Amino acid sequence: MSIGKKRWVIAEGYLPPLGPNPDDRTLRSHEAACILNAGDQPAKVAITLYFTDREPIGPYRLEVPARRTLHVRYDDLDDPQPLPRETDYSSVIESDVPVVVQHTRLDARAGIALMSTVAFAE
Amino acid sequence: MSIGKKRWVIAEGYLPPLGPNPDDRTLRSHEAACILNAGDQPAKVAITLYFTDREPIGPYRLEVPARRTLHVRYDDLDDPQPLPRETDYSSVIESDVPVVVQHTRLDARAGIALMSTVAFAE
Amino acid sequence: MSIGKKRWVIAEGYLPPLGPNPDDRTLRSHEAACILNAGDQPAKVAITLYFTDREPIGPYRLEVPARRTLHVRYDDLDDPQPLPRETDYSSVIESDVPVVVQHTRLDARAGIALMSTVAFAE
Amino acid sequence: MSIGKKRWVIAEGYLPPLGPNPDDRTLRSHEAACILNAGDQPAKVAITLYFTDREPIGPYRLEVPARRTLHVRYDDLDDPQPLPRETDYSSVIESDVPVVVQHTRLDARAGIALMSTVAFAE
Repeated sequence: MSIGKKRWVIAEGYLPPLGPNPDDRTLRSHEAACILNAGDQPAKVAITLYFTDREPIGPYRLEVPARRTLHVRYDDLDDPQPLPRETDYSSVIESDVPVVVQHTRLDARAGIALMSTVAFAE
Repeated sequence: MSIGKKRWVIAEGYLPPLGPNPDDRTLRSHEAACILNAGDQPAKVAITLYFTDREPIGPYRLEVPARRTLHVRYDDLDDPQPLPRETDYSSVIESDVPVVVQHTRLDARAGIALMSTVAFAE
Repeated sequence: MSIGKKRWVIAEGYLPPLGPNPDDRTLRSHEAACILNAGDQPAKVAITLYFTDREPIGPYRLEVPARRTLHVRYDDLDDPQPLPRETDYSSVIESDVPVVVQHTRLDARAGIALMSTVAFAE
Repeated sequence: MSIGKKRWVIAEGYLPPLGPNPDDRTLRSHEAACILNAGDQPAKVAITLYFTDREPIGPYRLEVPARRTLHVRYDDLDDPQPLPRETDYSSVIESDVPVVVQHTRLDARAGIALMSTVAFAE
């Protein structure tokens, strides 16, 4: 079963300050790109980050195995370099096989706030 | 009136801890797939869950009658097995007739946080 | 300028309890269908509500003038009948000219929680 | 790399009251249209605002350079005129080259509430 598209865009992007629980991975502010590979071949994925006032950074390379989902945390990205907090960005996610991408942010500055949207596919 | 698609994907999926009101069905943390069948035939629906580190589980089978909506709670799923909390997952929803699917999470860990998006259709 | 589609679906639908400020129209729990008619002809709009365990209700008829937006509050609907709170529903929005529809909920039970998504168009 | 569409619609639009931190740009209530121009040509963008009871205002003109993202804050718009708070509106975003647009609101009236959705593209 092959589902999805090979190129996705998340125009939003902003890592808020960590909030009152910086050492709790699930409760500190973060963003994720949730990537489902429902197919039978592993997905080689490349993420490129775009900014307001400098050239894009990337690709960040990762693999989503066949029939698996990967919720990629943007605060985990570190190669070629970590993503700074409190900085506007966008991301383009490219895969060699069809996948589906959904974007989520948890903002922990004052309680918990959530937002999510299916990404834009072409 | 027939509206929608037969295959939908929700790439996000995470049941947060229950929160301070575990016995209140509307106030404890949950996720839902809201499925509208606006047509004149009942919809036979199959949900398959995908994970990060094990094979998919499913199908979970249910029916949405003609001209009805069903807001399927993921914490209600139990056949073939319940969905664990605090675990990343994705879901694929397949129907034998066109339906429309929207995803919603309520996170009750600190007050109420909500997120929602129309699912991805193919 | 004509933008949009003539048939839209919001599969989610739930009016939470009013919350601590029931008399404040902007702060009590509510849902809205935001409808933009960017064209030069008035839009005649019909909303039909679908439920889990009874036949659909509607149409609720309204008009969005040319080059205007209307943020329809579901708790304002009253003809043919008001929408009950704490009840799962879905809505189908049909227009005789192209419009664009976005769904938003404000949940006021514990602080403010928001969710929004562009509706599904066919 | 050219990604996206040239005409986008955000049917929702409402700037809530500023909240308890009116002088903190990141913590006061605001809305943004996040615009990614992943291509090699600068994007000339025009935003038109639609209201419930008066003619549209605009265009607000801005440019997104090649390979850059711009998170346009609606409370920054001032030419031809500022956008009033606590007023329902919608926006149409037009670009001379393909871009991707995502809508986000932060409501700061009671803690932080967030909502986001990819805009509607045609």
